[in-house]
This record gives sequence, structure tokens and C-alpha cells, in this order.
Amino acid sequence: MNTRKGSLLSVRKDLRVLDATLRDGGLCNNFEFTDEFVFELYKMNIKCGVDYMEFGYKASKTMFNEADYGKWKFCNEEDIRAIVGNNNSDMKIAVMADVGRCDYRTDFLPKSESVIDMVRVACYIHQIPAAIEMINYFHELGYETTCNIMAISQVGSEKIVEALQMLGESDVDVIYLVDSFGSLYPENALELAKLYIEEAEKVGKKVGFHGHNNQNLAFANTIETLSYGVSYLDATVQGMGRGAGNCAMELLLSFLKNPKYNMYFLLDFIEKYMLPLRQQGVVWGYDLPYLFTGLLNQHPRDAMAFTSKKETDYSDFYKRLLEHY
Amino acid sequence: MNTRKGSLLSVRKDLRVLDATLRDGGLCNNFEFTDEFVFELYKMNIKCGVDYMEFGYKASKTMFNEADYGKWKFCNEEDIRAIVGNNNSDMKIAVMADVGRCDYRTDFLPKSESVIDMVRVACYIHQIPAAIEMINYFHELGYETTCNIMAISQVGSEKIVEALQMLGESDVDVIYLVDSFGSLYPENALELAKLYIEEAEKVGKKVGFHGHNNQNLAFANTIETLSYGVSYLDATVQGMGRGAGNCAMELLLSFLKNPKYNMYFLLDFIEKYMLPLRQQGVVWGYDLPYLFTGLLNQHPRDAMAFTSKKETDYSDFYKRLLEHY
Repeated sequence: MNTRKGSLLSVRKDLRVLDATLRDGGLCNNFEFTDEFVFELYKMNIKCGVDYMEFGYKASKTMFNEADYGKWKFCNEEDIRAIVGNNNSDMKIAVMADVGRCDYRTDFLPKSESVIDMVRVACYIHQIPAAIEMINYFHELGYETTCNIMAISQVGSEKIVEALQMLGESDVDVIYLVDSFGSLYPENALELAKLYIEEAEKVGKKVGFHGHNNQNLAFANTIETLSYGVSYLDATVQGMGRGAGNCAMELLLSFLKNPKYNMYFLLDFIEKYMLPLRQQGVVWGYDLPYLFTGLLNQHPRDAMAFTSKKETDYSDFYKRLLEHY
Repeated sequence: MNTRKGSLLSVRKDLRVLDATLRDGGLCNNFEFTDEFVFELYKMNIKCGVDYMEFGYKASKTMFNEADYGKWKFCNEEDIRAIVGNNNSDMKIAVMADVGRCDYRTDFLPKSESVIDMVRVACYIHQIPAAIEMINYFHELGYETTCNIMAISQVGSEKIVEALQMLGESDVDVIYLVDSFGSLYPENALELAKLYIEEAEKVGKKVGFHGHNNQNLAFANTIETLSYGVSYLDATVQGMGRGAGNCAMELLLSFLKNPKYNMYFLLDFIEKYMLPLRQQGVVWGYDLPYLFTGLLNQHPRDAMAFTSKKETDYSDFYKRLLEHY
């Protein structure tokens, strides 16, 4: 656990790449991707060797009005099938279910009737018992599962170990280290990853990493933690994701040495589909306001508001963040 | 040498921050900064606790026509003094002298007559003997010196050790690890830094790091190498520098724990002076073409040409790079 697994040249057969563009990127455009975009992204991911594609959230339709969002906030079975058919590919389909914002007992089919392969359960640390109930339910339905514990940079290590041990006794397959606020330096990320890996290895589970790019470290944290044994790696095309965005898929695929991964088709997709998104005014990526909230280990919501108003009085914004900190 | 020096919370009194905005950033705008920009940058660096400010190159006026460039390609003594007077501050003034592109025997005053404190000698590995001759000459004149060995990612480690040992016998104060092509991952950068530190510590010299952001790793590589003992850290405001640019000063200052460093005044400078530069069309920073040249350990010149033509056929460009590789 305290040594790197393999070298920079070796192939790690245990690695899995997950494309979260529709889900985390959907937070930038209200999940309003065109069907063409989603279909081309799906085909591109398959060609590039991506292992999992996350289509979006399974959000509660009693809590959220379907008319207010693009369809990938809800990921109806028929909407996914309209894109992927029966998904005759090696790539698996994932969706995210938030604890407390998902009608999971009514909105999921048994796996045998669904094209979805994996459900990723996102929760805060105090919601671990609720997350485990959901995870075990999804396993009964036949799905693979992950548990993505968010905002972990605000949690003490004793509590994290307790949560990891509780998850160790659950049916979950993969436990994700999630740097929600982009506040982790590689040194912090590695320390946490070692904690996760230690507990996960005891019970034969895998560990994943989901980064945010507030301090321009999403890719660095991803490759640092993977080199010590994290094996499920989240990325999004051009890092598209909430606020400062995520680890960029092009950086990750170019880094990985397994010849199954291929960046080439991704480059065409970026030119044809991502540049137009930017031109339409969809905004994400590293910028000063996100550095500040990452540095202060805060939710990026204030930075998102600042950015969306196109404000530039950075020093004043930073002062304000320090005040109500 | 194989352990981190201090923790993420501790103050490392040996650290020195060098602002290279005018020098590396000058490569983006032909060194055509206004006097107001330079004066405000100078005052800001002092207020932020920056230890060295590099004003530009001391380029040969027999090889380069003064009329073709902004004045910071030549850094005449009177031009620096017009900004800093006698530099009544704790911040030191640096200039860069390229081996083979500098009339160093005629263009430098004795230190006692100059406001310059440090000369940074940049060279390729085969120019080490010429660099050492210059370095020893600058020491006779009374200057501090560094040796910045460029393009080190294309050099084998035996040759690097030989060069480090030759420098160890010279008068040089600081030996810089320079990731010219932005091709180093933190794991590579650390391995090289350990080599530099091992040789430098034997002879009481310091090690510096100068990164490029081709793979979005300039900051990550800087903090990884510093944590193991690199102590001279190059950064530029908003990462302004050739191609993908450098380690951003705002990321570095926000990371350092010594209270002498203060990001606040930098934020005002960015708003008032860097945003207008961008609006005028000066371009730098991470983008796909730079990822490709970094990945392939190549000079970014092809990527700079691609970017300046505002081309977007990324996959075709990548194919072409692979062909003539």
C-alpha cells in the first residue's frame, strides 16, 4: 500500500475509466445536451476504450419538476435506450443516485430489465447509513454500485475510517474518494487514498477518485492516487463539470498506457461538439474564484455566482469569502 | 533526501519565489509591456513578498535588432533603473542570459554599479562548459547566479549527473530543473529533483524548479518537487509564459504558508493589468495542442503555430506530430 503499483510505463489491468461528462458537465448546462451530442459522446467513449459512461442523475420527480431540466437529470430508461439501444458494447452504463433526492424504490427496474449497469450512490458522510440501505437495495436488483462520499475534505479521519468500515460491510463494489471542493493537494489526496485503499483491500473492494480542478490539480491528484492503487478514475471531456470542472479525459487517456485507451476520437469530438458548447456560452474550468473556494475548502457556489455575473473584482471577492468563513 | 521536508502546514524558510512574468511572459507579447505594467508588477511583487523578479533577457544586440523587440529582451541597466530606481526593497532583481545569445563580456556592469542582483544562465546540456564559463565570470563581477539547464526531459540521467557534478565544481548558487516541454509528470519531476538535490547538497548549492503547463501540471510539479527539497520556485502571474505557460503565481502564493507571502495585491494586479492583456489578444495557457507536444516531449513550436492560426483540427494536428516524431 505504501509503494506505487507499477511504473509510468506499465499497464494496470485493474484500471477503469468513467466518463462523467453528462452528469458533472450537466451541472453547467442544466443537463440540456442535444440527442446528437449524447449519441456522439456515447460512440466516442466506446471507440476510446472508456469503461463506464455516466448518463446523469436519477433525480426524484416528486422533488424536481421534469420540465425544469434536461432529461439527463432523470435518466429515464427509455431516454437512455433511445441513445444506446441495448448497448451492444463493452462499455457499461452508469447513473448517479443522490441520497435523499432520489425515489430509488420506485424509479429503478431490476437490472435484468434495464440497460443500466452501475448505480453510483452519492452522499455526505452523515448519510452513510441511508447510502448503505440504497446500495444493498441496488445489489438486490442486480446492479454494480459505488458509494461516492462527497465533501470529504471537511471530514476528520476517524469519521472517514468509521464510514469506510461501515461500507466494508455493505454490498458496495467501489468506494469513491471525492474532492468535491477541489481543495486537496496531491499530498492530501494521497494520504486519504491510502486510508481508503487500506480499508477497501481488507474486504476486497475497489477505490475510485473523482477530482475537481479548483487549484488546477484534478489531473495531478488523479494520477497520484491511481499510482498508489486507486483504480476507478472519473474524467470528463475537457474537464466539463461544475465550477472549475474535473479531470480532463484527454489528459487522463493520454497518460494511461493500456493500448485499449485511445485519445484520437476524443479529439474529433472536442472539435465538433465541445467547442460549440463553449461558443454557446456554457462556462466551466479553472479560474481565480474557484481557486479561492478550493483553497478555503468551501462549496464553490459563491464562486459560481461571481463567475456567472462576470465580475472581476477578485480581491474584493476573496475578502468577502474570508469574512463569512 | 527521500522524505518530505516539512508538512503542508509548515513554513520553509529556505524557499525563494521568483516572478518570471516579464521574461517567460515576454515570449507571448514580444516583450512589449508598458512601463506602467512593469512598474505596477514590480510594486505588487514587493507587496506580495516575492523574493526575485526577473525583468527579461540580456540578449545580444549584435544578434538581435533592438527595434524588433520590447526593451525587456535586452534589459538595459537604465531601463531597469527607470522602473526600480536603486531598488530600495528586499526583493532582488534577476535577468536571464542565454548561452550563445548574449554578449556577456560587454553587456554586464560590475555588480557594484548595477541594480541587478542575479544572473540566470540558460543553456542546453551540451552547453554546460560554456555556461560554467559565464557563471564564473558573473561571480567575478559580483552577481548571484543560477544555471537553468533546459529541455532536461530529453536527456539521459548519466549525462544529467555529469552536468550536475560539473556545475558542482563551479561558482553557481542555484541549479534549476527546467521542464521546458511540460512533459514531466510529478513522478518524473520528483525523480529528477532528487537527483539534482543529491548532487547539489553535496556541494552546498540550492535547486530550483521551472515548470511549463502543457499537461496542466506546472503547479503540481512545483509543489511536489518543493516538498522534497527544491527551494527556488519560478512562477508567473496567471501562468503567463510561452505556449501553455508556467506555474501560476496565484496558485503558488496561495499554497505557501510563510506569512511573508500574500496573494491579495496580486489579485488586484490581475484584474487591472492581466485581464486587459488577454483582451488585447495576448494568448497563453493550457490547450490541447500543448498537451500533445508535452506528451510527446517535443518543443511547443508546432503547437504555438497551430494555436496562433486559431486552427481546431486537433486530431489531424496530433497525427502530424506523430508522423514527424
